[in-house]
Amino acid sequence: MTKNFEIKLRVRYAETDQMGYCYYGNYAQYLELGRVEALRSLGFRYKDLEDKGIMLPVMEFQIKYLSPAKYDDLLTVKTVITEIAGTRIYFDYEILNEENKQIALATTTLVFVSKETMRPVKAPEEIVNSIQHAKK
Amino acid sequence: MTKNFEIKLRVRYAETDQMGYCYYGNYAQYLELGRVEALRSLGFRYKDLEDKGIMLPVMEFQIKYLSPAKYDDLLTVKTVITEIAGTRIYFDYEILNEENKQIALATTTLVFVSKETMRPVKAPEEIVNSIQHAKK
Amino acid sequence: MTKNFEIKLRVRYAETDQMGYCYYGNYAQYLELGRVEALRSLGFRYKDLEDKGIMLPVMEFQIKYLSPAKYDDLLTVKTVITEIAGTRIYFDYEILNEENKQIALATTTLVFVSKETMRPVKAPEEIVNSIQHAKK
Amino acid sequence: MTKNFEIKLRVRYAETDQMGYCYYGNYAQYLELGRVEALRSLGFRYKDLEDKGIMLPVMEFQIKYLSPAKYDDLLTVKTVITEIAGTRIYFDYEILNEENKQIALATTTLVFVSKETMRPVKAPEEIVNSIQHAKK
Repeated sequence: MTKNFEIKLRVRYAETDQMGYCYYGNYAQYLELGRVEALRSLGFRYKDLEDKGIMLPVMEFQIKYLSPAKYDDLLTVKTVITEIAGTRIYFDYEILNEENKQIALATTTLVFVSKETMRPVKAPEEIVNSIQHAKK
Repeated sequence: MTKNFEIKLRVRYAETDQMGYCYYGNYAQYLELGRVEALRSLGFRYKDLEDKGIMLPVMEFQIKYLSPAKYDDLLTVKTVITEIAGTRIYFDYEILNEENKQIALATTTLVFVSKETMRPVKAPEEIVNSIQHAKK
Repeated sequence: MTKNFEIKLRVRYAETDQMGYCYYGNYAQYLELGRVEALRSLGFRYKDLEDKGIMLPVMEFQIKYLSPAKYDDLLTVKTVITEIAGTRIYFDYEILNEENKQIALATTTLVFVSKETMRPVKAPEEIVNSIQHAKK
Repeated sequence: MTKNFEIKLRVRYAETDQMGYCYYGNYAQYLELGRVEALRSLGFRYKDLEDKGIMLPVMEFQIKYLSPAKYDDLLTVKTVITEIAGTRIYFDYEILNEENKQIALATTTLVFVSKETMRPVKAPEEIVNSIQHAKK
């Protein structure tokens, strides 16, 4: 398990719904931002991965909404890479609001896929090594 | 567990990402459409529920992506109400593509919340009864 | 100018914002659905166009919001192809609510672009001809 | 006309479409972020405005897409308040990419609306004054 990578983001008006909360489907974007920055911190741009012919679609996603996020709230997304093994990479996320209250907990499983064959491929070695080094 | 309520929807261009797949976060909207129509089939408009002062936010959401959905695919969302108890209602979903291939499986837990107190409230009796009758 | 092509769609919960209105940015998706179905009515799937190596990005977009759209409203999008000339195609749109009240008016200009060269290309002849025939 | 208020934002993966570009409808969110921060720079939180019973829906929106925005691009949105008069406020926007190339130009007209009466109301005096002072 790597250390926590943190990003901050503000809930957009577009992301609210008529309940006055951030729509539950929009958290998926927040997690995407969290994991992209976690990888960037380790020296990998997701964009470069795709340019090399490897995509990283989400296979599984679970989330618990503990407390609503509201418009203009400044959220913190803490991302941890819990494992990278074979063709898969696992992330855990914690979302906090400005009062440092936990508002959501999530996990995702992603799979490395070759753009050419559209089949799962082994995680690139430099990413595996870099995550091993980043482990606490 | 109620019977399956089915809706059809087409993947919008806006919903694709540069992988050429439907973005993983957009499925949350498809499930929303599935459960809204399931409730409508039972005689309840979600809109009316809110007008009566009851909101129904999602507390928990889990999804497995088995196969990608692509632009212009005509999807079927099958929704089942698995349980309604206390302040909560549980839905199961299955998403199929045009070749009748299962592309995603999901579950959500929603909670009845009073707009006034912002606290969980018991599921309205007419919904509970109507779901009991719809059980197979 | 072709005849009106009509589609119906329902405002999703995800598309509302905390004003209780459909967020102004979401209309772009409704127009996309309108023009895709207009082309489909003329015998063209946008998907096939892309498979042949031609993309159709939007170059210009203008919209007036006359009255709000709300959650669960059943909207009608009327689409007219006003012109196809050179590398461009022009659409006009009118959005009506269930009471047949005009709620938005919009226009878009799109450009045919080769996927290979990323440069504008002439509109495919079969589309030009088909639109000429569809003119009133 | 006020000075330029600048924000930076990164194109999210969710915001791309299968053309590999940022979907044309998503720019509406970028403009929203631009004008919210422009108002915040002048001392007004849009959130506070709503809490005081005034909403600010968009009445008119025009945009020209000059060049595509791509995934992970770091964009600059420059926002200018061009006028505030009666019940309306007008914004001009310019979006630039990392190479400082202009990729979009837009304008929006918004109207101050009372939440209670749902009718247009005069722009709050403190906002009018503050914009007058911010004029170049």
